[in-house]
Amino acid sequence: MPEKRKPGEVRLIPIRFVDDIVPGDSIAGKLLDAMRLNRQRFHVGDILIVKHKIISKAENRFVDLTTINPSAELIAWAEQYDLDPRVIELALRESRGVIRRKNGVLITETHHGFICANSGIDVSNVDGGKTALLLPENADRSAADLRIALRRQTGLAIPVIITDSFGRPWREGLTEFAIGIAGMKPLRDDRGRRDPRGYKLKASVEAIADELACAAGLVCGKLNRTPACIVRGFSYTTGIGGVKDLLRPAATDLFR
Amino acid sequence: MPEKRKPGEVRLIPIRFVDDIVPGDSIAGKLLDAMRLNRQRFHVGDILIVKHKIISKAENRFVDLTTINPSAELIAWAEQYDLDPRVIELALRESRGVIRRKNGVLITETHHGFICANSGIDVSNVDGGKTALLLPENADRSAADLRIALRRQTGLAIPVIITDSFGRPWREGLTEFAIGIAGMKPLRDDRGRRDPRGYKLKASVEAIADELACAAGLVCGKLNRTPACIVRGFSYTTGIGGVKDLLRPAATDLFR
Repeated sequence: MPEKRKPGEVRLIPIRFVDDIVPGDSIAGKLLDAMRLNRQRFHVGDILIVKHKIISKAENRFVDLTTINPSAELIAWAEQYDLDPRVIELALRESRGVIRRKNGVLITETHHGFICANSGIDVSNVDGGKTALLLPENADRSAADLRIALRRQTGLAIPVIITDSFGRPWREGLTEFAIGIAGMKPLRDDRGRRDPRGYKLKASVEAIADELACAAGLVCGKLNRTPACIVRGFSYTTGIGGVKDLLRPAATDLFR
Repeated sequence: MPEKRKPGEVRLIPIRFVDDIVPGDSIAGKLLDAMRLNRQRFHVGDILIVKHKIISKAENRFVDLTTINPSAELIAWAEQYDLDPRVIELALRESRGVIRRKNGVLITETHHGFICANSGIDVSNVDGGKTALLLPENADRSAADLRIALRRQTGLAIPVIITDSFGRPWREGLTEFAIGIAGMKPLRDDRGRRDPRGYKLKASVEAIADELACAAGLVCGKLNRTPACIVRGFSYTTGIGGVKDLLRPAATDLFR
């Protein structure tokens, strides 16, 4: 279905949770509970953006770090930089390759194909650093499952984007990135379209799923128990498409 | 002034222009005219995000490509990939160094320190590709000038972010990036802050100026004559800070 852009505004509506998420929780259930409590509901056209952490928790992607035995070489490297060698070992296991390992920074390509620090592993500060939390095994599938559960419970087909915050080459600070997508096209391809004067636009493919992730980053956060938000008023293109559409193949990438 | 985050929603409000911008135009004047026509006005706490293209046009950053004489070597390289060698020559002039030149892609570091394709040069499709448009000479200064002009005309101190769309390593599609900032801190540093359970947050510096740029990308566009938008409801930290805060020094960068 071709996209129609409305000239109107876009709203970023945070969803505040009360409970922590624990393994086995239904994210759809917890989300709709939270929305009910906040007197919020989905509208036709909404997009749901969810931080991956609650998905990982619900999917029990916890790893007990005391079960990880890094090599002597890794221990020596990690200690130089005051890092936990068990996290580094786990990051290597969760990767399909090392992109850079230098100055105490480990950049890997994860099994999913994301290039980020430490394979996206979070270490909880809750238990003194004994537990690690991995990315969802397949965040496209997690997004699709959540979308189906929401459709069953609300009757609405809501696209879902799952996000994580990554560092970027050349730029300081983290921003949010889409790591799982269901129900919408991640890219908007304006090539061949015409501007208001009738001139054809040059190559212009926009990573709207990543821009949506960043927009959500403005209202979601650890400090305010807001692991999800609704984007309302943004015209997306429905269709099958996953995060793979956002990953540049190694053959055409200049920075590996 | 320390930041206070409101739990509420953030609104992205597009500003639709009627006229094209031409050299010498006052962006503040054109913007306030457009807002008047659209029955829009600034509120306390608003952030203004502007696509760099109208700034470059107002600052007459046009270059007549017929005045550019590329070397024979550059002509040979460009012709292999069906590129305009004059644009490549100009991109090199606008750069302080080449980061990659391969497969018909030229990634440079601009004089400002941005790493992007072709030094961020746009080629207008209006006149058959005879004119190039450079980035603003100093977009922090452009942002500061716009902020001062708006303060004079509205009485409000509105932070201004100027953006451009760049490609990224490893990911497909372009997203918006901040290239000039005035009136707010580009980074939010949550290190040392505590989550709702009282636990200290790990290293977490968020590039909010880039996230704001991406959010604006959702409502601004070439197709709808919307070169600017207001972000309303986002709690920023006022203060002196420019785009330099977002540029990772070469010494700590792993991808040059």
